[in-house]
Amino acid sequence: MKLVVKKFGGTSVGDLGRISQVAELLRKFLAENPGVGLVVVVSAMAGETNRLTALAKSLVAEPDPRELDTLLATGEQVSIALVSIALRQLGIPARSFDAQQAQIATNNRHLEAQIEGINAAALNAALARGEIPVVAGFQGVDEEGSITTLGRGGSDITAVAIAAALKADACYIYTDVDGVYSTDPRICRYAKRLTQTSHEEMLEMASLGAKVLHPRSVYFAMQYAVPLVVLSTFNPERGGTWVVPEEELVEKAVVTGITYRNDEAKISVHHMPQGIKSFNLVFSALAEQGIFVDMITQAGAADGTTTVSFTVPDEASSKALALMQALVPKIKAEGASLERDIAKISVVGVGMRYHTGVAAKLFEALAAEGIDVSMIATSEIKISVLVPRKFSEVSIRALHRAFIENQPEIALERGAAAV
Amino acid sequence: MKLVVKKFGGTSVGDLGRISQVAELLRKFLAENPGVGLVVVVSAMAGETNRLTALAKSLVAEPDPRELDTLLATGEQVSIALVSIALRQLGIPARSFDAQQAQIATNNRHLEAQIEGINAAALNAALARGEIPVVAGFQGVDEEGSITTLGRGGSDITAVAIAAALKADACYIYTDVDGVYSTDPRICRYAKRLTQTSHEEMLEMASLGAKVLHPRSVYFAMQYAVPLVVLSTFNPERGGTWVVPEEELVEKAVVTGITYRNDEAKISVHHMPQGIKSFNLVFSALAEQGIFVDMITQAGAADGTTTVSFTVPDEASSKALALMQALVPKIKAEGASLERDIAKISVVGVGMRYHTGVAAKLFEALAAEGIDVSMIATSEIKISVLVPRKFSEVSIRALHRAFIENQPEIALERGAAAV
Repeated sequence: MKLVVKKFGGTSVGDLGRISQVAELLRKFLAENPGVGLVVVVSAMAGETNRLTALAKSLVAEPDPRELDTLLATGEQVSIALVSIALRQLGIPARSFDAQQAQIATNNRHLEAQIEGINAAALNAALARGEIPVVAGFQGVDEEGSITTLGRGGSDITAVAIAAALKADACYIYTDVDGVYSTDPRICRYAKRLTQTSHEEMLEMASLGAKVLHPRSVYFAMQYAVPLVVLSTFNPERGGTWVVPEEELVEKAVVTGITYRNDEAKISVHHMPQGIKSFNLVFSALAEQGIFVDMITQAGAADGTTTVSFTVPDEASSKALALMQALVPKIKAEGASLERDIAKISVVGVGMRYHTGVAAKLFEALAAEGIDVSMIATSEIKISVLVPRKFSEVSIRALHRAFIENQPEIALERGAAAV
Repeated sequence: MKLVVKKFGGTSVGDLGRISQVAELLRKFLAENPGVGLVVVVSAMAGETNRLTALAKSLVAEPDPRELDTLLATGEQVSIALVSIALRQLGIPARSFDAQQAQIATNNRHLEAQIEGINAAALNAALARGEIPVVAGFQGVDEEGSITTLGRGGSDITAVAIAAALKADACYIYTDVDGVYSTDPRICRYAKRLTQTSHEEMLEMASLGAKVLHPRSVYFAMQYAVPLVVLSTFNPERGGTWVVPEEELVEKAVVTGITYRNDEAKISVHHMPQGIKSFNLVFSALAEQGIFVDMITQAGAADGTTTVSFTVPDEASSKALALMQALVPKIKAEGASLERDIAKISVVGVGMRYHTGVAAKLFEALAAEGIDVSMIATSEIKISVLVPRKFSEVSIRALHRAFIENQPEIALERGAAAV
């Protein structure tokens, strides 16, 4: 039997009108696809998780995590009941499943639990009876029977995990946008919706700031080779973007997307005497304080000293600067500085594995606009650069033009390293 | 180990301030009663169940009962989490239990499920670890693992059932009044709070309109001989009313309370030719339509005909009248009439079992005020009369004066019939 999982986010079930819309969408799908099995996964109504969190936090600054999870899980429980009620009204034999009923087992790390397994028996039995299970996203049950939640992007993870457990043919992620774009359409009017992308590209794009899917759910889908479809609840006929295993891509574009993030800051420690020990002190000081470091570069000077620069989340930047300033006398550096007006722009594409010249083309495109790049970082399928934040939009448009609007003419060298 | 169950209703946990108040009340109790085991049962925050019901009903006029139960159960789940969070903040090792976790098994009659058993193992294990279980009232789980709810008064029933299952020493019902009164204090300024009453008296008073406890929970407590204490969340030091097995009553008052209800209407079918068949037609017509009949009287006339009168819930009275009018030609009665401006006043007390003259005293008290009684019904421990609704307050005050303010001087006849 063909089987699909369809997941609806908080905006898609944000009010009763939208819940009715989701029910109608599913009725149409079932009518047009007789014999196809369907499992529905839903998030809490938009705003509900925040409302519940605020409720707990106005009682206590740091609510007990187990109890906070019990509280938050009611958000999805409300949604599964309302969606099931709306479906049954249309004559569809829906049946709600909370995490206990769907047998979604997690570890006991409350607020950011990880799914350890789904016993597919209960959902399979419902499917065999011809029912449409409507499963609460975002939640699980630990070994002791306590309710857990999965953290940000949790409902997507639930949907992907169920698709993997039931060996579904695809997992549809319905959201408020109609797919994944080659870049942010608000910045670049020529941004185009991707028909296809690979899990790995999507993972890079998700991590780099495309807000459509949470990296953890993409990672999960990649691990279990679950095809994802991202599409709009409100315009499902537009088709959306398929996220598939790389080998199934029809076309391997050199650059699939241009992403950006403006929430990092750059810190430099200037003119450190060279030596591994100073490096070690810098990064272990940051690690001890739980500060996440993203890009790192170093540059040697003629006097034998080294300047090391790195990026950290903007919200941690003052703390990071203070740590570095405290370290300056100890490692005999000249000083430490913080630069906050930066943006990180990335070009992503699996085709980079097989093409050279991407970095050259990138620098050329930015140089033509008079934009200096202050840091660069690469992986097999992406190149990220740091530019002044005021040039963020200009950079995105220039790179989109160079790599996506004008098809790149770069020599194919199978197996060659990227860049 | 001494063990008590304490249940807090919707008003008691109606907002965050009140939840903190409940937590403080419990902290004080634990500090003053070291070594006493405690299980807390809570309702949904006041208004929440109505809000959730309205949400479902604005989707669909008649929501699927299983799904409505899943929806409604979130109300108590929010409460157990918030109360546990507030208690843990005070250093009390609280732990929330939903119905699944507390192992409250019910039948599958959604929206009015009945508790079939509580496996005390989980709660006992928590108590043995020194924890304070905070259990969701009003809900259970059926054989299939579906969430059920217990209907009106459900949280009280949960509390009593847990007290029975754990063999607790008492079940405290915290509410927004400070106990059970001898009559409605808004009507009679001399109404006095009862220190003690029996389950059976309470059951009569609950059924007859005292809104403090739901009859089902009192019935449950009577069956399992669980002592109940009704008291105010906001003035717990006032002490409240104990509801105990009759044999434990210190004083068996002839009349413990005067209750009333204004939500019934009286229907008469006039001058029916006598015969069991007509009676049968009258009451089976009502039963077929699910109309609940309360008091019934019949009076024979000199011409050999009978007039039968009965009371029904006011909301069903028009329907009942129409049924009777349709029946009039068939049973050759003279006509049917409806009287809506009536009130039912009852005097209740276990002492009636052992005293005569209560009815006489009742008629005398009402006659002294010039009030005619149109119907009368009796049980072992109560007498109910129907009076014109405009005389409702006057009747209550007169009976309160006669039976409660002035201690009755009635000859004791052990074992004599009431009335």
